[in-house]
Amino acid sequence: MIKTDILIIGAGPTGLFTVFEAGLLKLKTHLIDALPQPGGQCSEIYPKKPIYDIPAYPEILAGDLVDKLMEQIKPFEPGFTFGERAESLEKQEDGSFIVTTNKGTQHHAPVVVIAGGLGSFEPRKPLIPNIADYEDKGVSYIIKDPEIYRNKKVVIAGGGDSALDWAIYLADVASEVSLVHRRNEFRGALDSVEKASELAKLGKIKLFTEAQVTELHGENDLSGVVIAYNDKEKDNQYLEVDNFIPLFGLSPKLGPIGNWGLEIEKNAIRVNNAKDYQTNIPGVFAIGDVNTYEGKLKLILSGFHEAAVMCQYAYKIINPDKRFVMKYTTVGGVEGFDGTKKEAKKEVVQSIV
Amino acid sequence: MIKTDILIIGAGPTGLFTVFEAGLLKLKTHLIDALPQPGGQCSEIYPKKPIYDIPAYPEILAGDLVDKLMEQIKPFEPGFTFGERAESLEKQEDGSFIVTTNKGTQHHAPVVVIAGGLGSFEPRKPLIPNIADYEDKGVSYIIKDPEIYRNKKVVIAGGGDSALDWAIYLADVASEVSLVHRRNEFRGALDSVEKASELAKLGKIKLFTEAQVTELHGENDLSGVVIAYNDKEKDNQYLEVDNFIPLFGLSPKLGPIGNWGLEIEKNAIRVNNAKDYQTNIPGVFAIGDVNTYEGKLKLILSGFHEAAVMCQYAYKIINPDKRFVMKYTTVGGVEGFDGTKKEAKKEVVQSIV
Ligand SMILES: Cc1cc2nc3c(=O)[nH]c(=O)nc-3n(C[C@H](O)[C@H](O)[C@H](O)COP(=O)(O)OP(=O)(O)OC[C@H]3O[C@@H](n4cnc5c(N)ncnc54)[C@H](O)[C@@H]3O)c2cc1C
Ligand SMILES: Cc1cc2nc3c(=O)[nH]c(=O)nc-3n(C[C@H](O)[C@H](O)[C@H](O)COP(=O)(O)OP(=O)(O)OC[C@H]3O[C@@H](n4cnc5c(N)ncnc54)[C@H](O)[C@@H]3O)c2cc1C
Repeated sequence: MIKTDILIIGAGPTGLFTVFEAGLLKLKTHLIDALPQPGGQCSEIYPKKPIYDIPAYPEILAGDLVDKLMEQIKPFEPGFTFGERAESLEKQEDGSFIVTTNKGTQHHAPVVVIAGGLGSFEPRKPLIPNIADYEDKGVSYIIKDPEIYRNKKVVIAGGGDSALDWAIYLADVASEVSLVHRRNEFRGALDSVEKASELAKLGKIKLFTEAQVTELHGENDLSGVVIAYNDKEKDNQYLEVDNFIPLFGLSPKLGPIGNWGLEIEKNAIRVNNAKDYQTNIPGVFAIGDVNTYEGKLKLILSGFHEAAVMCQYAYKIINPDKRFVMKYTTVGGVEGFDGTKKEAKKEVVQSIV
Repeated sequence: MIKTDILIIGAGPTGLFTVFEAGLLKLKTHLIDALPQPGGQCSEIYPKKPIYDIPAYPEILAGDLVDKLMEQIKPFEPGFTFGERAESLEKQEDGSFIVTTNKGTQHHAPVVVIAGGLGSFEPRKPLIPNIADYEDKGVSYIIKDPEIYRNKKVVIAGGGDSALDWAIYLADVASEVSLVHRRNEFRGALDSVEKASELAKLGKIKLFTEAQVTELHGENDLSGVVIAYNDKEKDNQYLEVDNFIPLFGLSPKLGPIGNWGLEIEKNAIRVNNAKDYQTNIPGVFAIGDVNTYEGKLKLILSGFHEAAVMCQYAYKIINPDKRFVMKYTTVGGVEGFDGTKKEAKKEVVQSIV
């Protein structure tokens, strides 16, 4: 059982910044995310695109924003449960909560914050009848640890950035990389397309375009796939492989959170924005894209503000008898749980002669 | 008469960011500030100190934050009325407002946003009986344009960063710079203290410590000051001067805004935080440090969020018949009023051979 002060569901920009605001109040945090990496939509959908409305950043790539947030929260040593979806929320007798993931990992905390954005990112799966039989037995939809493909024969399907970038990356890791795409054209950042093209020419990526994986084979684990061309005149090909990784993108689904007894409105969680961003379940807050209230803006800067306000109220739940006096970070500095301390240089008081 | 869409009182971080959010909605803005420069508390009180809780900035100097905001809002060409205090607010028959400053400058807009922070920064004045007679006739409390001191004889009073920095700066501009301070020790950034010390040694700054300016003389304009030492044994000195600049710091006062018929609570303006940050006067909003509501945090990041929300509602007042569809900056780009356009690079769609 993982124990913490504030359990955060969702490691998008809102969830990440919550770690910082909680840390200033000396509260520990742990985050759960269905994705294998932090950053939510910023990492999953548009890491290489610029955002222009982050205050005081005339321009910042979404991926760099996530990196900066990770650097900012580092002193507060957040815990992470990545690649798992929060499935159930159970209120305990003492008012605390246990949150269990789809893989059975349990988390226990007095306060739960849902920073789930548009929902947990779930892979779009290809329509191959027996694909579920091979999940985690050769088939995976997201790449958590590329090392598990070392010296393996890998087939990647897809035509976007994710398929391109992983094909490029695995070309140096796997013993064989095939890239299968329904169309002739790929859609991605210019340098990814060029790099993949180069590797294809060198034979380091085997390219199958205007084609799809249509069958999966193997006794227990996956051992081969059938590739069929759009052009029915062309013969199907059988490929011996260890891994099949369809990367058709992830789409967010509110999912199980919808069944936790929360007040849901337009696929989002209703909160009290006049006060603390608490939901109808006391002790459960919802911030960032996942919440709704009159005039809600689904903007990153709003999640930041909501996190700061929400943490003040979480503090009162966790420390009912303590009074907290807010200090500006400039004045009080930042004391990490890792022993680091940042503080402003003191002014000198000195006579001039 | 200066005309604009949204008139912003206060050019602190909140007021500045409002320019950006308004600009995204194609609304023009104009700012009034009692200070001679933008940035509010960040510029006036702690420009050289780090802030640690600006989201995605693990550390940023307050002065740099202001520079970044100025860069971000540049495409939207805000107007500025600096060095003047907004004195009166008059509602017009058509629902718009005229705001007049202490210097008589008039501003006309359908929407007024008060982003006045802790209030308008007013100088702490030394207790010299006839000082008011010489205001703007040789005596000033803030330096707006250092050029007016070129080849003048200047006396600066004070022992902090501001007195040190201006004495250093004017040493190259004025024909004579004297620095008078009640104590023997100065309080400031190390490099300022060192630099002033050096210039004093070179005779480029005349130093009077443990002393004060006690009398002002001159027919009409200021022509001389009397400096008295704390040590009464020492003789007073008469100094011929053109300018006397006491820099004892500025302290914020809510001031005239308190008499505009707004609902004031604990020296701040009550707003509807459940919706639009509007005050009890329709069309007048209050955001940033100047407003109050249950759980209000006087943090920079909160002003940013409040600005974004408030601008959406201002849009509806200004364009009652248009429907605005919000686009992410990443998707829609940023189109400046100055003709500049920022946008994300388009993905390429390309075949790989
Ligand atoms: C193309 C594009 C451009 C954009 N441009 C801008 C812009 O210019 N400016 C701006 O302010 N915003 C922009 N946005 C919106 C911005 O990305 C979102 O507002 C922001 O990501 C919301 O952050 P969040 O942390 O609230 O949620 P998200 O980023 O959505 O993160 C939520 C996380 O929670 C996880 N999660 C949800 N439910 C569960 C569960 N049950 N178990 C485990 N994990 C779960 C998800 O997997 C996800 O990682 C843009 C969005 C897109 C798609
Ligand atoms: C030492 C110190 C350290 C701080 N550290 C932090 C920190 O670490 N993190 C953080 O988030 N915040 C910090 N703050 C607070 C932060 O600076 C404020 O929250 C922020 O400046 C508020 O911005 P604002 O734009 O709302 O108001 P302000 O910065 O106060 O600006 C308001 C402006 O309005 C002008 N004004 C007011 N009334 C009038 C009028 N009638 N006419 C003309 N002009 C007028 C004023 O002159 C002023 O320039 C700190 C503050 C101080 C003093």
